[in-house]
Amino acid sequence: MASFGLEKKTKIPPPEQLLKPLWPHPKFLFGPGPSNPNARIYNASSLPMLGHFQTEFHHILDEIQAGLRYAFQTTNTYTIVFTGAGHTGMEGAMMNIVEREQKILICLNGMWGMRAKNIAERQGLDVRVIEKPAGEAFTLEDIKKGLEEHKPVAMFITHSESSTGVCQPLEGVGALCHKYDCLVIADTVASLGGTPFFTDDLELDVVYTGSQKVFACPPGICPITFSPKAIERVKNRKTPVPSFYLDILELGNYWGCDGQPRRYHHTAPINLLYTLRESLAMLVEEGLENCWKRHHDNIEIFWAGIEKMGLEMFVKDKNLRLPTVTTIKIPEGYPDWKAVGSYLMEKYHFEIVGGMGPTVGLVWRIGLMGLNSRKENIPSVLRLFEEAFNHVKAEK
Amino acid sequence: MASFGLEKKTKIPPPEQLLKPLWPHPKFLFGPGPSNPNARIYNASSLPMLGHFQTEFHHILDEIQAGLRYAFQTTNTYTIVFTGAGHTGMEGAMMNIVEREQKILICLNGMWGMRAKNIAERQGLDVRVIEKPAGEAFTLEDIKKGLEEHKPVAMFITHSESSTGVCQPLEGVGALCHKYDCLVIADTVASLGGTPFFTDDLELDVVYTGSQKVFACPPGICPITFSPKAIERVKNRKTPVPSFYLDILELGNYWGCDGQPRRYHHTAPINLLYTLRESLAMLVEEGLENCWKRHHDNIEIFWAGIEKMGLEMFVKDKNLRLPTVTTIKIPEGYPDWKAVGSYLMEKYHFEIVGGMGPTVGLVWRIGLMGLNSRKENIPSVLRLFEEAFNHVKAEK
Repeated sequence: MASFGLEKKTKIPPPEQLLKPLWPHPKFLFGPGPSNPNARIYNASSLPMLGHFQTEFHHILDEIQAGLRYAFQTTNTYTIVFTGAGHTGMEGAMMNIVEREQKILICLNGMWGMRAKNIAERQGLDVRVIEKPAGEAFTLEDIKKGLEEHKPVAMFITHSESSTGVCQPLEGVGALCHKYDCLVIADTVASLGGTPFFTDDLELDVVYTGSQKVFACPPGICPITFSPKAIERVKNRKTPVPSFYLDILELGNYWGCDGQPRRYHHTAPINLLYTLRESLAMLVEEGLENCWKRHHDNIEIFWAGIEKMGLEMFVKDKNLRLPTVTTIKIPEGYPDWKAVGSYLMEKYHFEIVGGMGPTVGLVWRIGLMGLNSRKENIPSVLRLFEEAFNHVKAEK
Repeated sequence: MASFGLEKKTKIPPPEQLLKPLWPHPKFLFGPGPSNPNARIYNASSLPMLGHFQTEFHHILDEIQAGLRYAFQTTNTYTIVFTGAGHTGMEGAMMNIVEREQKILICLNGMWGMRAKNIAERQGLDVRVIEKPAGEAFTLEDIKKGLEEHKPVAMFITHSESSTGVCQPLEGVGALCHKYDCLVIADTVASLGGTPFFTDDLELDVVYTGSQKVFACPPGICPITFSPKAIERVKNRKTPVPSFYLDILELGNYWGCDGQPRRYHHTAPINLLYTLRESLAMLVEEGLENCWKRHHDNIEIFWAGIEKMGLEMFVKDKNLRLPTVTTIKIPEGYPDWKAVGSYLMEKYHFEIVGGMGPTVGLVWRIGLMGLNSRKENIPSVLRLFEEAFNHVKAEK
C-alpha cells in the first residue's frame, strides 16, 4: 500500500473553527429570497437518501413532474428540474434553443435582463437588446418593434423583475413572437405560484423558476419547462448543446421524458428534490388558485400599510407590480438606506434588503412570498419596517 | 387586479398522487454513490435557512473554505463550491482554463474520460485523446508522449475512475505537464478524503470532488480548487468564460477570495452547504490521515473476503485500486449479473450496481466510502453479496 502515500503526513493542518457546532440563528426572511421553509420542507430534506437509479426515486421524479406541470400550467412533456440555482435556468434555456452567432433579443428593464445579456454574450450569441427604464414593463408594441428590427430566433423576457418589482404582462407575447418564428424564454424565478401564470395559454417556450421563493424550499434546484416547439428546435440544432450538464434532451431522458430507458446523466440532488416534492404537495393541498389569491390579497393589505406610512411605491401601476417582491421608494434626502436593513437584522434577525443593479440606492425590497405570505405576518412586517425607518431617520 | 387574471381557472388539474405522504424506504447505499449520510448530516440539512448576504452565512463560507483546503491539502485561495453536481466541476474546470479552439488532452481510460471528451467537444475545444484500456492507469511515459505529440494547454485526468475501479497515480504528473506549459485538471469525485491526496505537492491546477461520496452529504454541490497558475490563466483569457454561473473569478468574489467586497452572484445552496460544513467538521474530528487509513484498512479486509469467495478483481494491481469503489469481475458464463443487484435491492433494500460505460456487463461495483466504510459493515456486505451471487447462479 506504500504507493498510495499512507505514510505521508498532512501539511495543511485541520482548521479548528470547524469544531464549533454549526448553529445558524433563525431568521425572518422577508427579502427577495430565500423565503422561510416550514417544518414539512425541512423534514423532507432529511428523509432517507435514495440512489438515483432506484425505482422509488423514479416515482418521485414522476410525481415532481406532475406537480410542476400543475404549477406551470402546462402539458409540456419536458418539465423537469435543473440541478443548480435559477441561473442554470437562464443559461440552460439559451444554450439549448439558441446556437452560437444566432440572434437573441433581450428585453432589458432591470437586473435580470442585464444578467441575461451578460450570459448570452458569453455564449457567443448575437445579442440584441430592447430597453425600458427600471420600474416599467414592455408593451406588445415595444416587443413587435424589436422583433421586426432584429429578427431574433429567441427572445428573453423577465416575468418577475425582482430588482425593480415589475411583473411583466405576457398576454399575447408568445403568439406575437411565434409569428416572427421567435421562441420565448420567460424568467419566473420570483413569481411562479404567487400570481396567475399559464405557460401553455401564453404560448411560452421555455419557462423556469426558483425553488427558494414561492416554493419556500432550500436553494439549489431550478424547475424548468420546454414546449414541444422548443424541443423541436433543440432536435434540429446544427451544433451540439455546449453543455452536457444542461442539455435538455439528455436530462429529459434521465427524467423519463422521451419514453426511452433512462440513461445515467448525473447524480440528481435527491434531498433537494424531496423538498420540492413536499412543497408541490402543499400546493396541491392549498390549490393553485388559492395560492395565487393568497399572495394577491396579502400584498394589497401590505401595500396599503406602506402607503399609509406616507411612502411611495417604485412601480406606480398596481397592475404591473409583483405580488411577491415589493419595491418601496427611498424618499429623497433619506439619510442612510442601508442602515434600515442592518437595524432590522441586528435587532430582530429580520431580513429586508435594498435595491439591486439599476435600483441600488433607489428602493427597499420586501418579499412576502411562499409560506411567509400570511395575513398575520403583515402587521409585524409593517411595524418593524416603520420602526427601522423612523429610527434611522431620527439618528442621522 | 383583474389584469393579473385572478378570475381565470386552472386547466391542468392538481395531481392527486402528491397527496400521498413522501416516505422513501431507508436504503443501504453500497454502490458507487451516493453513500449514506448520518444523523449529523441530515440534521445539518434542516438547520434554519439564512440569506446569502448575511454575515453569519459568510462565516460559514469561510469555514467551509478552511475545511476544503484541509481536505484538498492546498493553500489555494480559490477553493470553493460550485452549486451543482460533480459534472459542474468537470464542465467548469475546462470552461475556465481552456478557450474555444485551444487544445485539451483527455486521458481516457473509462467513463469519466469519455464524459470529459464529450464535454470538451461541446465547448468547442480542440480535443486530443490518449487512451488506455478500462482497468489500467496512465504512466508518466504515456502522458509525456501525449504532451509532446499534442502540445495541449490543459490535460484532464481522472484520479478516481469509479467506472473501472482504478485509482490513477498522480505523482510527478503536475510537474511534467507544467514543463510543457500545460495545466492539469484532476477528477477526484469518488476518492477525495478516502486516500492520500496532496493537491499542492502534486502541482495540480484544478481539482474537484463530489459531496455524496466520501463526504457522505446529499448530492448537488461540487467542491473545487484552482491553483494560482489556473487563476492567472483565467485572468489572461482573450475571451470571456462562456458561463457566468461557473466563472471562477465571479464565484471567487462571492466566496470572498479576491479581497473585494462580495457581489451578488447567485443564491448559494445554503442547506447543502450546511451539510458539507458538518461533514468537514467530522473530518477534522477524525483527522484526514485517520480517514485515509480507515478507508484503506477496511477495503483490504473487504478485498480479502471477495477473493475468498473465489472472485477476481477487475483491477489486478492493488496499488492501482480505488479504496472507495471496488470493481469485481463477473465470472465468465455467469447467468444474469443484473439479477444480483435486483435481488439485494428487493430483499434487503441494499444497493450495489453493475458496470458503467466500458465496464457494463464486466463488473459489479461495490462502494465502501465515507461513513459506510466501517469495519463492522464488511461482514454483512460480503455475506449479502455472496448470498445474492449464489442465489442468482442457482436460479438460472
